[in-house]
Amino acid sequence: MNNQLNYIREHEQEFIERLNSWLRIPSISTASEHRQDVQQAAGYIRQILDQAGMRTERWETARHPAIFAEGGSADGPTVLIYGHYDVQPAGDAKLWHSPPFEPTLREGALYARGTADDKGQILAHVLAVEAWLKTVGKLPLRVKLLIEGEEEIGSPNLATVVREHRQQLACDVVVLSDTSKLSPEIPGITYGTKGLIYKELKVSGPKQNLHSGLFGGTIANPGQVLAQLLAALKDDRQRVAIPGFYEQVLEVSAQERQALAELPVHEQQLLRDLGSPQLDGEHGYSTLERQWCRPTVEINGLFGGYMGEGAMTIIPASVGAKVSMRIVPYQQPAQISQLFDDYLQSLCPPTVRLEIHTHSMTDAYLTPPDLPALAAARRAVEKGFGRAPAMIRSGGTIPIMALFRRELQAESLLIGFAHPHCNLHGPNEFFHISDFMAGIRTSAQLLEELAAR
Amino acid sequence: MNNQLNYIREHEQEFIERLNSWLRIPSISTASEHRQDVQQAAGYIRQILDQAGMRTERWETARHPAIFAEGGSADGPTVLIYGHYDVQPAGDAKLWHSPPFEPTLREGALYARGTADDKGQILAHVLAVEAWLKTVGKLPLRVKLLIEGEEEIGSPNLATVVREHRQQLACDVVVLSDTSKLSPEIPGITYGTKGLIYKELKVSGPKQNLHSGLFGGTIANPGQVLAQLLAALKDDRQRVAIPGFYEQVLEVSAQERQALAELPVHEQQLLRDLGSPQLDGEHGYSTLERQWCRPTVEINGLFGGYMGEGAMTIIPASVGAKVSMRIVPYQQPAQISQLFDDYLQSLCPPTVRLEIHTHSMTDAYLTPPDLPALAAARRAVEKGFGRAPAMIRSGGTIPIMALFRRELQAESLLIGFAHPHCNLHGPNEFFHISDFMAGIRTSAQLLEELAAR
Repeated sequence: MNNQLNYIREHEQEFIERLNSWLRIPSISTASEHRQDVQQAAGYIRQILDQAGMRTERWETARHPAIFAEGGSADGPTVLIYGHYDVQPAGDAKLWHSPPFEPTLREGALYARGTADDKGQILAHVLAVEAWLKTVGKLPLRVKLLIEGEEEIGSPNLATVVREHRQQLACDVVVLSDTSKLSPEIPGITYGTKGLIYKELKVSGPKQNLHSGLFGGTIANPGQVLAQLLAALKDDRQRVAIPGFYEQVLEVSAQERQALAELPVHEQQLLRDLGSPQLDGEHGYSTLERQWCRPTVEINGLFGGYMGEGAMTIIPASVGAKVSMRIVPYQQPAQISQLFDDYLQSLCPPTVRLEIHTHSMTDAYLTPPDLPALAAARRAVEKGFGRAPAMIRSGGTIPIMALFRRELQAESLLIGFAHPHCNLHGPNEFFHISDFMAGIRTSAQLLEELAAR
Repeated sequence: MNNQLNYIREHEQEFIERLNSWLRIPSISTASEHRQDVQQAAGYIRQILDQAGMRTERWETARHPAIFAEGGSADGPTVLIYGHYDVQPAGDAKLWHSPPFEPTLREGALYARGTADDKGQILAHVLAVEAWLKTVGKLPLRVKLLIEGEEEIGSPNLATVVREHRQQLACDVVVLSDTSKLSPEIPGITYGTKGLIYKELKVSGPKQNLHSGLFGGTIANPGQVLAQLLAALKDDRQRVAIPGFYEQVLEVSAQERQALAELPVHEQQLLRDLGSPQLDGEHGYSTLERQWCRPTVEINGLFGGYMGEGAMTIIPASVGAKVSMRIVPYQQPAQISQLFDDYLQSLCPPTVRLEIHTHSMTDAYLTPPDLPALAAARRAVEKGFGRAPAMIRSGGTIPIMALFRRELQAESLLIGFAHPHCNLHGPNEFFHISDFMAGIRTSAQLLEELAAR
């Protein structure tokens, strides 16, 4: 690997400049006025892949194109590396210390929209491929890349793209770098994410808002009923009270419990960062177990009746709530969704009407712990970062692993190179140059480790 | 009384024209662009009082003036008649079948903003005074009128006006006609109103909205806690669960219960009008008892977190609720307010912060049942409407009776002339001409009855 590592070290400045050029293109997929920028960002990464020696294709979709690249021997194992070239909007420009699309280096970190999510991370893989091709002259295994332009709008066309190109995307394992390290010092491999079921409740009573004096006491108040329904979602041990909710939950094993307990996680620091008076959650589990391994139900929003300043004396005609559940292996989204609906409908008194709308359902994901590629990834990260990775999970939801499992029968490795608080989706997103370089080294090592297994 | 009644009958057309002229002045007290109209409406009623032969004064306030008038013998009993010449805004003009400030007669009812609330009703009293003065040449007792211009903005200066003119306003009883009849057919005297305590709750946790996946399960969700607090406001018999809440409540007596049960109230019609699936409220009480005599707690609004369309996965930094209580004699607003705060604070877990703001507190009111003036009013209404009035209460809140009781040591009679669903504050407010005329006759009779007692 010395040649590849030398190439990477010698090209650090050039790699940063190439990343900067890419970051300067505001490829905001949500905004139609940035359509040209999105196209340009797709063309930019395709050109880098072409120049590295990969065979590339541009796959059109109903909105933004995906770039596909492949190279290496047709024999032996195949890895598919997934990433995205689109970015979130910058948000409030006043909150940025430097312009969001003018990459700026401060104290070893590059600040710009898309540095960590996901241009910097996916470029690390591309440059690792280049390092192999420019030094060894070939790749140690079949390498495919799929870099889409719609991740930040929920990948509406990805399932179609994957289905249509199932043969070309066929692989043994998928690698994603859209997560983060455990801490600034400790790299991580994320082996589990939660699924998501997003609900909207509407409780309605009278046909219009009523005077709360003249009609108070005569009918059920939709706000009161909604409060009762939401309160009934949890018991006094902070467990989700929906009957059957936990039946399929993969319990935290003694071994995993031990491993999580040994991670250097600082609860007091977390508490300060979040600002709540206390940490809290399901009894009987550590904070990290609750955050990563246990299913949750959260109220995301409440609305209805008089919401303005001051006082208005009404019984609201209807009120609503946004409620989401994060589920874990092996809870089935459709089943949990039904249990939720059935439970609330059974609790709802006949004095009001309850409507439940399901906005979305997404599976949880767990990388099989005995996957050989997982061991390969651990060795690669340790070599790339000079430190063994922590094995971490996330309470967040990434829907695409379930898609790859379903369509390609391939499991996924989530190897994050970025700082855990890199201001993803917020102002002042950053990516440390040291993590960028470690990411390139890790990816170069990973190709060898995956080829060797 | 024949002379007065003849005068009233003979001047019906002219009385309606005078009401129409007054209604055409859009004296909307909330809107500063109508300041001139408010002034003009004050001048209009003052002129009518002057021409009737009353001695009038214009009392300036920080905003809109009050008109004071007095007449009749300085000896014997004194009645103070209260009303207001300001009106609510018209609201959505498209919902009106005729222009809100162009009085229009349809099927015996006059449609315009302010017909029932309160120009038509207070003018009825003024015209009764005129009938006495133009026929008998004098009033049978001392009559004072106070007609303010700020009722629809909460009478912000009325307490000051009453305190400053306590001597001039001294009286034995107050008469208000700002309520309604029991039904289209049955007149009513309202002998009780509820008080009001209006609260706003804020439950806050993290210092900013958090990602509900990444941080779900680690801290208390303010929305969940708010739901639990609101749910705890009522028990499973729909009683208010605040300890001590009912301690001072004047229970519905067997006699009152009987009287209410005999009122021709149609629950199925009420249910159809309101549109809820069922009537509901505190167990053990009839709908009318709950509506009029039992204290209630109602959620007026809920807000916080993500309230827009679609889905956003956040744990809200804070959520809020507007909650109001309607209290009854002899609950003390300050005491109930404190019980509410203490109860919710005692239930609130230390994992969030709960702030409670009190927007307003108003006393309940009950006309003493043995008040001689009440018997006089019953006789007057029976003569004026040709039918004995129902003795009714209201779940609504009118703060001024407590003011008159405190400052003038005088009790109040609430005699409503208007249809119970006269679209007060809504589009197409109306007042039946027959009720207007019956109101004038009632008021003329009332002066005699009050003088005779």
